[in-house]
Amino acid sequence: MTDKQAPGILDSFSSDFKRIEEVLEQHFASHIPFVNEISRHILFANGKRIRPLLTVCSARLCGVDADYAYDLSAVPEYLHAASLLHDDVVDAGEMRRGVPPAYKVWGNSAAVLVGDYLYAKAIGLASQFGNVKIAEEIANTVGLMAEGEIIQLLHAKRPSFDEKTYSDIIYRKTAALISTSCRIGALLAQAPQEQEEAVSTYGLNLGNAFQLIDDVLDYTADESELGKAIGTDLAEGKLTLPIVIAVKEADEKDSKRLLSIMGAGHPSDEDMKWVKNLLTSTGAIEYSRNKARDLVQAACDSLDVFEPSETRELLKALALFVLERRK
Amino acid sequence: MTDKQAPGILDSFSSDFKRIEEVLEQHFASHIPFVNEISRHILFANGKRIRPLLTVCSARLCGVDADYAYDLSAVPEYLHAASLLHDDVVDAGEMRRGVPPAYKVWGNSAAVLVGDYLYAKAIGLASQFGNVKIAEEIANTVGLMAEGEIIQLLHAKRPSFDEKTYSDIIYRKTAALISTSCRIGALLAQAPQEQEEAVSTYGLNLGNAFQLIDDVLDYTADESELGKAIGTDLAEGKLTLPIVIAVKEADEKDSKRLLSIMGAGHPSDEDMKWVKNLLTSTGAIEYSRNKARDLVQAACDSLDVFEPSETRELLKALALFVLERRK
Repeated sequence: MTDKQAPGILDSFSSDFKRIEEVLEQHFASHIPFVNEISRHILFANGKRIRPLLTVCSARLCGVDADYAYDLSAVPEYLHAASLLHDDVVDAGEMRRGVPPAYKVWGNSAAVLVGDYLYAKAIGLASQFGNVKIAEEIANTVGLMAEGEIIQLLHAKRPSFDEKTYSDIIYRKTAALISTSCRIGALLAQAPQEQEEAVSTYGLNLGNAFQLIDDVLDYTADESELGKAIGTDLAEGKLTLPIVIAVKEADEKDSKRLLSIMGAGHPSDEDMKWVKNLLTSTGAIEYSRNKARDLVQAACDSLDVFEPSETRELLKALALFVLERRK
Repeated sequence: MTDKQAPGILDSFSSDFKRIEEVLEQHFASHIPFVNEISRHILFANGKRIRPLLTVCSARLCGVDADYAYDLSAVPEYLHAASLLHDDVVDAGEMRRGVPPAYKVWGNSAAVLVGDYLYAKAIGLASQFGNVKIAEEIANTVGLMAEGEIIQLLHAKRPSFDEKTYSDIIYRKTAALISTSCRIGALLAQAPQEQEEAVSTYGLNLGNAFQLIDDVLDYTADESELGKAIGTDLAEGKLTLPIVIAVKEADEKDSKRLLSIMGAGHPSDEDMKWVKNLLTSTGAIEYSRNKARDLVQAACDSLDVFEPSETRELLKALALFVLERRK
C-alpha cells in the first residue's frame, strides 16, 4: 500500500485502506473452501485497492461518509479480481502481482468458475443497496470489460491497429470499471447528475491514464519493482500505445521489424532491447507519457464542480500520483 | 419445440415461444460481430426455452400477462447460455445440442469471454425492471451455478460421492436457475410471498426432476434423439444419481468395477454395455425415475395455492411432460 515515490498520498488514505481490507474479507466467502482459497489468491495479493478507494472517496465527495460506502467499495474490487482470473486464462499470463496466476496453480476450469463466482458476489452485493442504477451500472461495466478483452483478443498479433482501437480497448478493459467505481459512490450518495458525471469523468480519465502508464511501464520499469516480467506485452503480441506510435513513427524497415517481432512472440533479449530503443527514439514513450499527463489534468479539472475540500484535493493528488508510479 | 411424445403440451405455448424467440433476438446484441456469432451459436441451437416459458407463465399465474414479462424471460435463458459456454470449457464436452460446443469452434478464450458478456447482458436486463430483488435473485443464482460446477469438478472421478452431494450439485447447477426463472415472474408481478414461494418451489422440484431425467437419459436414450453422444457422463467420470445408486446397490466386485470404469474415462463399448446392464439390474434407473416422479408430483402440488386456471393446469402438464421426455 505504500510506495517509495509518493509515500504521502497513499498514506493519507491509510484508515480507508484498513476498512477496505476488512470489507473485502467480509463479503466474498463461499462455504466451499476451494473457492475461498482461489478467491484469496487473487483478492489478497498486493492489490492496490484503487477502485474501492475511489468508490469511498467519490461517495464522500458527494456528501456520504457512512460505513456502508465501504461495503459498496468491495464491488469493483471483486469485479476486478474476477476479470483478472478470466483474463489470465485468456492471455495465458505468466505472473500476476508477483505470483503465478490462479489458472497456473489450479487450472483453467477453477479460474473460470471462481471468476464467475466473484462476478456473482459483486453483483449480489451491488444489488443490496436498494438502487437499481448501481446494479445496472455494474452489469454494463462487466459487459464492456468482456468486450474489451474480446476486441484485444481479435487484434492480438495483427498488424492492423490504430490509436482509436487502443483507446477503445483500454476504455473497456480498465477505464470503464475505474469510472464505475467512482460513479457508484455518487449513486450511493444520490448525488445530483452534475456531480455523478464529474466523478465518472474523473474516473474515466484517471483509468485511461492508469492503463497508459501501465503499458509504458511494461517497457521501462524495473522487473523486481513491477512484480511481473518486463516485456510481457511484447511476448504476448499485445499492441499497446507505445507500439502503435512506434509503428507509425519509425521508418518502413524498423516498423516492419517491430511488427514481425510482435507477431512472432517469444522475443529474444536482443529483440527486446532493440524494441525498447525504438520506443524511445521514435518518441513513442514520451508521446504516451504526455497523453497520460493530459488525461490526469482532465481528471483533476473535472472535480472543479465540487467546492474545495480535503477529499477533492486528495483525489487530485491521487491522479497525479498515477503519473509517478513505478509499478 | 415439438416433441413426438407429447405434441399437445408444448404446442399450447406456441404463441409464447414465438414471442420468446423475438425477445431473445432483441436483447443480446453486441456491436462486435464476433460476440454475436458465438452468442447465436449457443442461444439459437435448439434450446428448449423452458426457463423463459416458466418466467412468463409464473408472471401470468401471479396476475401479470404483459409484454414486458417476455423481456424479463430472456434473462434466465441468457444466464443458461452463459453457463453452458463456461461449463463446456470446464467439462471439455464434445457435443452440445447436436453441434460442437463454442470452445471447440472458437477456442476457450472466446467461450469464456462471450459467457461473461452474456452474464452481463442477463444481469443488465434484469436490472431494468426497477426491482432490486430481481437483480439480487439473479446474482445469487449465478453464484450458486458456479459453486455447483465447482463441487462437481472437485468430485469428478472421485469414488466418494453420495446422494446428498448429487442433490446439492443438481440443485445448484440446474434447479436453482429453473426455480429463479419462476420466482422472477412472481417478483415482476409483485405477487404475495405465498405465491412467490409456490412458483419457486414448483421450479425447484421441476428443475431437480428435469436434471434427474437428463442423467437417466444419458444411459438410456437413443443417441440421434438426444443430440449428444450417449454415455458422455460416464466418459467424463460424472457421478450422477444412477451411478451413485448402482455403486451402493451392486455387490462389492461390480461396485469396484463400476468405479474403476468411471475413474479411467474413455469406457469401451463393452464397458458401456456392462454399466447400462448394471444400472438396470441394481434398480438404479428405476430408483432415479421414481425419484423424478415424486419431485414432479411435489411440483404440481405446490401450485395448489393458486385457484384453478388454464395456466396452472398447463404448468402441471409441463411438469408431467418432463417425465416423458426422450431428449
